[in-house]
Amino acid sequence: MDIKIVEVGPRDGLQNVSQFIPLDKKISFIKGLQKSGLTHLEVGAFVSPKWVPQMRDSLEICKQFNQYDNILALVPNQRGMDQYLEAQLKNVAFFTAASDTFNLKNTNKTFKDSLKVYEPLIQQAILDKSKIRMYISTAFYCPFDGKVSTKKVLEVVEDLLAFEIDEFSFGDTVGLATSNEVTDLINGLKKLMDISKINMHFHDTYGMALSNAAKSIELGVRSFDTSASGLGGCPYAPGASGNLATEDLVYFCENQGIQTGIDLDLLIEASQDIDNFLNRESSSKVKQAIINKG
Amino acid sequence: MDIKIVEVGPRDGLQNVSQFIPLDKKISFIKGLQKSGLTHLEVGAFVSPKWVPQMRDSLEICKQFNQYDNILALVPNQRGMDQYLEAQLKNVAFFTAASDTFNLKNTNKTFKDSLKVYEPLIQQAILDKSKIRMYISTAFYCPFDGKVSTKKVLEVVEDLLAFEIDEFSFGDTVGLATSNEVTDLINGLKKLMDISKINMHFHDTYGMALSNAAKSIELGVRSFDTSASGLGGCPYAPGASGNLATEDLVYFCENQGIQTGIDLDLLIEASQDIDNFLNRESSSKVKQAIINKG
Repeated sequence: MDIKIVEVGPRDGLQNVSQFIPLDKKISFIKGLQKSGLTHLEVGAFVSPKWVPQMRDSLEICKQFNQYDNILALVPNQRGMDQYLEAQLKNVAFFTAASDTFNLKNTNKTFKDSLKVYEPLIQQAILDKSKIRMYISTAFYCPFDGKVSTKKVLEVVEDLLAFEIDEFSFGDTVGLATSNEVTDLINGLKKLMDISKINMHFHDTYGMALSNAAKSIELGVRSFDTSASGLGGCPYAPGASGNLATEDLVYFCENQGIQTGIDLDLLIEASQDIDNFLNRESSSKVKQAIINKG
Repeated sequence: MDIKIVEVGPRDGLQNVSQFIPLDKKISFIKGLQKSGLTHLEVGAFVSPKWVPQMRDSLEICKQFNQYDNILALVPNQRGMDQYLEAQLKNVAFFTAASDTFNLKNTNKTFKDSLKVYEPLIQQAILDKSKIRMYISTAFYCPFDGKVSTKKVLEVVEDLLAFEIDEFSFGDTVGLATSNEVTDLINGLKKLMDISKINMHFHDTYGMALSNAAKSIELGVRSFDTSASGLGGCPYAPGASGNLATEDLVYFCENQGIQTGIDLDLLIEASQDIDNFLNRESSSKVKQAIINKG
């Protein structure tokens, strides 16, 4: 494949959906996504069911898919790490943010303090021979602090380079970034790490996600987080879009000969089942256009 | 201004809306758009009211705005040209397509035959000291013939270079084009004409419009057609998007210091009045996000 698409719909997408989706529906969704050709999928988060009730069945789901090499789950703390190890996956994701206010509001810790939490978890992941991903949210803007400078993001990354992290996923959490900002960050990151470690995670709230992905591809990035049918988004902002839709990136790539290994029709079939269940209109324009065309 | 935005909402946008919008509502919409800083606007089409009933009041509208330098109206034939001259505007637009099937289905003429119609009209426009724009639809894909090659588009352009046309507007009518195709066409066009004559007109049906505009800006194009709130689209495909939304292009540009001269808040105010009247959800993600944020 020319680019790697990490499907985050079953986790990042669904965790923002208030209506609970039964276990069997989630599992058939993930199987449908796999059938479309997706191999890298984030399927769960070992977070408190009190805070994120949608993820309360993550252990069962992860156990169902632990025979695959590239299935990922999110872990925020030791309790989550224990569940992750029980599920026997091969890929773990931790998360932090470039903005301290965002870190404080989400985890009650500064970035430096969160490192102390992650240090032992990362050691356990290494012993487990798991691959390690680190999400870096608010890599461009913070909902509380506004613009986050590239310098600030690079400082956070430099601290994280002390750990054996296999992949960094840089999130435009608010969806406000445009081409020049993406260019600045990626050019800065390239000086700190091999480009194969860089993954971009764009939100489409302001419709900028695809053009930002296009710019990243131009700059050599080959790994992107997307969610089927654009699942996700802010529960407190109806109509606001979630992640870049997998369909949109697949169409963009395949139309110009960039291979993704994903069958667009099968992908649409897989996400349609969830959209129907949620009585949700897709936020993927490619999916909408193909369905409208009939 | 660093780029010129030609607002086509009042014509290309509204002509696809089946619900008739009263004259005073259209006029206040156009005035609102002007107030936001838009100076180049296409406000009417002198087409048969039998075929496009929404445009039946174009003469009244054009007369209201003929004191401005950059107000544009579409003319398909001598009858339309007579009305255009009566309205005393300073900018006339003609249209053709790169695909013969599209030309035949829309105008019952091949491209070569349409040139015979336009030749005397162009002469009249020159005598009138009007600036002349030529729309070239299906510059990438045709809904009937599929892919239209760059070579075919350039051949059409070469024939048109015999006439004194001030600006060419290249339309991705179906919305299927992606970066490489845009790059090919623009690079080809640059060999035939000064880049200041090139305008790009992207439809967002597949969500590709903004990334195509971004690519065009990179290649030096400085003129784009957009429609406020993304008005337009195919009446037979509900949910399908119309033109690239003006709001989305303005945000994309202004966020990285490319000046458009347009005030985003005033623009949203202007299009909201029409969206409310039509009980229509905006297809501009920027507008949606700003309204949801409150």
